[in-house]
Amino acid sequence: MNELQPVALEREGATADLVVEGGRVYCSHRQAFLERDIAVVGDRIAALLEDAASVTGPETTVVSAADRVVLPGLIDAHTHADLQLILDRSVPDVLATGTTAIVTESSGLGVLFGSRGVETVLERTADCPLTTYLTLPPQGFVDTFEPATGTAAELESLADLLDRERVVGVGEIDWIHVVGRDAPIEGLYERAREADATIVGHGAGCRGASLRAFATVADNDHEAISADGIRERADNGIHVVGRCGSIRDDLDALIEAFPDLDRRSVSLSTDGVWPGDLLEGFGMAELVCRLIDAGIAPADAIDAASRNTAEHFGLADRGVVAPGAVADLLVVDDLETMAVETVLAEGEIAVADGEPVVEPRTDPYPDYVYDTVSVDLDRDRFTASRAAAPDGTVRAMAVDRGLVTTETTVDLGVGDADPDPDEETPQRLGPAPERDALTATLFDRDPATEDRRFTGFLTGYGLESGAVATTATWETAGLVTVAADADDAVVAAERVASTGGGTAVARDGEVVADLPMPIAGTAAELPPERFAARAAAVADALRDGGVDVERPLLTVQTLTFPGVPALKLTPSGYADVLGRSLVGLDPESDAGAD
Amino acid sequence: MNELQPVALEREGATADLVVEGGRVYCSHRQAFLERDIAVVGDRIAALLEDAASVTGPETTVVSAADRVVLPGLIDAHTHADLQLILDRSVPDVLATGTTAIVTESSGLGVLFGSRGVETVLERTADCPLTTYLTLPPQGFVDTFEPATGTAAELESLADLLDRERVVGVGEIDWIHVVGRDAPIEGLYERAREADATIVGHGAGCRGASLRAFATVADNDHEAISADGIRERADNGIHVVGRCGSIRDDLDALIEAFPDLDRRSVSLSTDGVWPGDLLEGFGMAELVCRLIDAGIAPADAIDAASRNTAEHFGLADRGVVAPGAVADLLVVDDLETMAVETVLAEGEIAVADGEPVVEPRTDPYPDYVYDTVSVDLDRDRFTASRAAAPDGTVRAMAVDRGLVTTETTVDLGVGDADPDPDEETPQRLGPAPERDALTATLFDRDPATEDRRFTGFLTGYGLESGAVATTATWETAGLVTVAADADDAVVAAERVASTGGGTAVARDGEVVADLPMPIAGTAAELPPERFAARAAAVADALRDGGVDVERPLLTVQTLTFPGVPALKLTPSGYADVLGRSLVGLDPESDAGAD
Repeated sequence: MNELQPVALEREGATADLVVEGGRVYCSHRQAFLERDIAVVGDRIAALLEDAASVTGPETTVVSAADRVVLPGLIDAHTHADLQLILDRSVPDVLATGTTAIVTESSGLGVLFGSRGVETVLERTADCPLTTYLTLPPQGFVDTFEPATGTAAELESLADLLDRERVVGVGEIDWIHVVGRDAPIEGLYERAREADATIVGHGAGCRGASLRAFATVADNDHEAISADGIRERADNGIHVVGRCGSIRDDLDALIEAFPDLDRRSVSLSTDGVWPGDLLEGFGMAELVCRLIDAGIAPADAIDAASRNTAEHFGLADRGVVAPGAVADLLVVDDLETMAVETVLAEGEIAVADGEPVVEPRTDPYPDYVYDTVSVDLDRDRFTASRAAAPDGTVRAMAVDRGLVTTETTVDLGVGDADPDPDEETPQRLGPAPERDALTATLFDRDPATEDRRFTGFLTGYGLESGAVATTATWETAGLVTVAADADDAVVAAERVASTGGGTAVARDGEVVADLPMPIAGTAAELPPERFAARAAAVADALRDGGVDVERPLLTVQTLTFPGVPALKLTPSGYADVLGRSLVGLDPESDAGAD
Repeated sequence: MNELQPVALEREGATADLVVEGGRVYCSHRQAFLERDIAVVGDRIAALLEDAASVTGPETTVVSAADRVVLPGLIDAHTHADLQLILDRSVPDVLATGTTAIVTESSGLGVLFGSRGVETVLERTADCPLTTYLTLPPQGFVDTFEPATGTAAELESLADLLDRERVVGVGEIDWIHVVGRDAPIEGLYERAREADATIVGHGAGCRGASLRAFATVADNDHEAISADGIRERADNGIHVVGRCGSIRDDLDALIEAFPDLDRRSVSLSTDGVWPGDLLEGFGMAELVCRLIDAGIAPADAIDAASRNTAEHFGLADRGVVAPGAVADLLVVDDLETMAVETVLAEGEIAVADGEPVVEPRTDPYPDYVYDTVSVDLDRDRFTASRAAAPDGTVRAMAVDRGLVTTETTVDLGVGDADPDPDEETPQRLGPAPERDALTATLFDRDPATEDRRFTGFLTGYGLESGAVATTATWETAGLVTVAADADDAVVAAERVASTGGGTAVARDGEVVADLPMPIAGTAAELPPERFAARAAAVADALRDGGVDVERPLLTVQTLTFPGVPALKLTPSGYADVLGRSLVGLDPESDAGAD
């Protein structure tokens, strides 16, 4: 007999470890709220009882839910736990938003270190009260713009991780890498299919025939930003992951499309909540609140943030309030506010009176994750060769809506005159801020590849002086600088290198703000409050320098990210994302970088 | 690039292997019927296209669904493929009812041979167009009435089978074996939980505290026979499996409760369709039709017979019409009749114009399955010891609604006079049909145990002469006789033994009808038509002998089945099912058998 039965049977002397009493309990199988007490034994729900007094003993912890609503702990269907602030530090605050489980990419440690990095994330989250499910990083096995870096042995090592209990699939893949072309990632997908694991899609802008083809690869997608896009995904059997987080808010599209969807075919996700938002209490509960406020049935909104995700990813015994399920529970004041009162994580109280009562994990990571910025920062590497664009007109990325960068050309004002022999580095093309032309240099940090770098140009960002450097580059292990001044670029990059990664802003030869991110160069290990303050200072320093996009850092971090087209940086040249090719500085030529 | 993409992309020269054109296609993720052509490549759906002409080549098979409706192939959530007629022979007819996959118990080979039997079923169904998912037999690891027969090694062997692709869990367990008591099956359940496999319940009559406790064990239950019972299961997180088949029809209860359930928390099952019903076209399509006819939304009814079951049991890529899913497809004339026109099984046409176009598998099973009736059929073993009930009044099973047998007492008319020394077997208690008292003898066929047998008594069956013997005993490897005449019992039992199992009726020393079931003694290997004819002849022979229950054979076969209480046969005595104890013939005593 399992340990839950004596309490379920209300046997003489059997007592629950914990009881949640007096609440209206959401029962997904009934789509109803039932007046029940919940008896918990160990980490499991033993029974839903009319009255748990019979199993409440002197040792039983009693949580009152009188006049309140009890829900399954919320599950974030897509996030990035090792970007920005490492999860360890944010766990208490994430729990306080009602989230008890996440499905996360391993976008920092996983992208840089592959299976070894994934193993580290698994170890760090093994005893975490926020249950952490992982997807495997596919980035090493795409070759759209550059040769794949992942070896066959590494693919096997990653695939073997599919046997781990908390590894649920393969992480998000930009559709451009896999639609209509052969890619080495296919080998990992075959293993994932064999293991019935889930393949996460990233189908930004994917539609029509491409979306049909992507549907044969990906099981879900969080990148639909219109109601039509959502319906088209559902038509093709793709599980819709609605998103609202620090990067984007696409809930209005989901709300519009919701009546046309099977209610179980929808999950909710944040795609990442950064410390500033987190400290304001933003999280999954707010997403549920938004849906309910828009008129979506509470049961539908709750399931989208719990059971649907658990079932889609195969998260065993999660996402419902039922006997035998893991006791991840959330007590909210009401469904209108979704104000979080109490959170139980695997049967333990994690949040009480709205405040987290668990501590963040603060012990250091293994040494290897801290030493990831080893690049040659010679000043010439921050500028481009004059030979790449002899007439001084270069292909450039134009900032459009913050993340997207479109292709344009910029005349750097060096004319077609011969290089001036009196200039210090006459063969180089540098920033021309007076012409709205900044250098954007990407250094490769991947130890598996050569020490490559490419300098392109960026317009529309607004920086008038100084430079910013960051290693928090999306989907690639890199170091990016965006500079109005090449000397400041060196200063900023050197600071970032000296802190093992992070972000720094330099002006007039001095660092004016920085945010160290020493873990894989992509995540800080600070208290959330300190992270938020330093990130705000970095952003302010960029605004002081003239940057006029809404989120100055996000633009820089996503310069490497082909998931939002159209022209992006690689260490070998520009990625013409939709053309799926590398192009160089010369706008007249489709070939070569500098 | 996977092999589906060229067709999904409508690339020049890419052609589908098969196209289903012109139908209204049920898209579960949209809860809608869409006008689409379906392009199939290999065993998978490659794309849903507005017009598949672009991918239709000279080699493409074209199935017209014009003016018709295309659904996912139906999935039977609970059946018994190795009882009565072995699945091999019925596959074409099952496919013709729209069923393309089943989740089946292994109630014959599995119960008798354990893991070896399961392996044989897996082998026999490996290439079956009717995709066959199996649950593991728990019977060897219950000890409610008698010691468990399964060894620790056998438990390991069974548990190891959980790794097989088509083994989806542990088969149905009567709640009386596991609620409130320790049972050796717990070890198998632990392994199943680790493997995220499903535990099938059999909760007939289970309610209240017992149901709450059962909910900590079982994931689903097909035994709710009232709307309240269904709601109570859903309250406790138990997936509801509605049933309509040759044994029972509980759909009215499901229809009544349906509005109170989450639509995904319901599956449909037959619990077994016997050849007579199968030949009349009864199957899953009829269940769907019944629900729709009762006013349940077609999408809900279809999902209950396809996607819900696939998701509950984790049947990968089944149950939906979507790119990448297995091409199990069903074309019906309309949703009102659910008349089956075409069935595709894994991309191949299995039924055309309503008629199966696949052949049954007819090669013999491994030798070991045919030799399973080796019992001592000495005449005295078919009667009881006079000493067990000295005054001639015995505890007896009373037939109640065919399957259920309640407890009663019968005066056999031997009074309290001393045994007549002139009687042939004066120390024995035999049938007394004139007093509505038949002997009911169970011989143990399990080679792992002693050659045990018990003779009890049965009233209310109506047999006035002759006897019936069968090895098709539910949940136990047995041979049962029910006799108005002990000599005829011997004759019937000998016939059954000589055919390696089956059912026989004897009267006046002659076999008057029989139905050989040589596979594990529980299943025939005949064409369905011949099975149905012989089974009808056996039933008629029993009716000719006076039997007046609706299904004469079912009563006999279920005399060993504790899943429907209250007094049943074991080889060691009566099982007092609800008392969970063995009792003997003496109605004044709770102990001992003869």
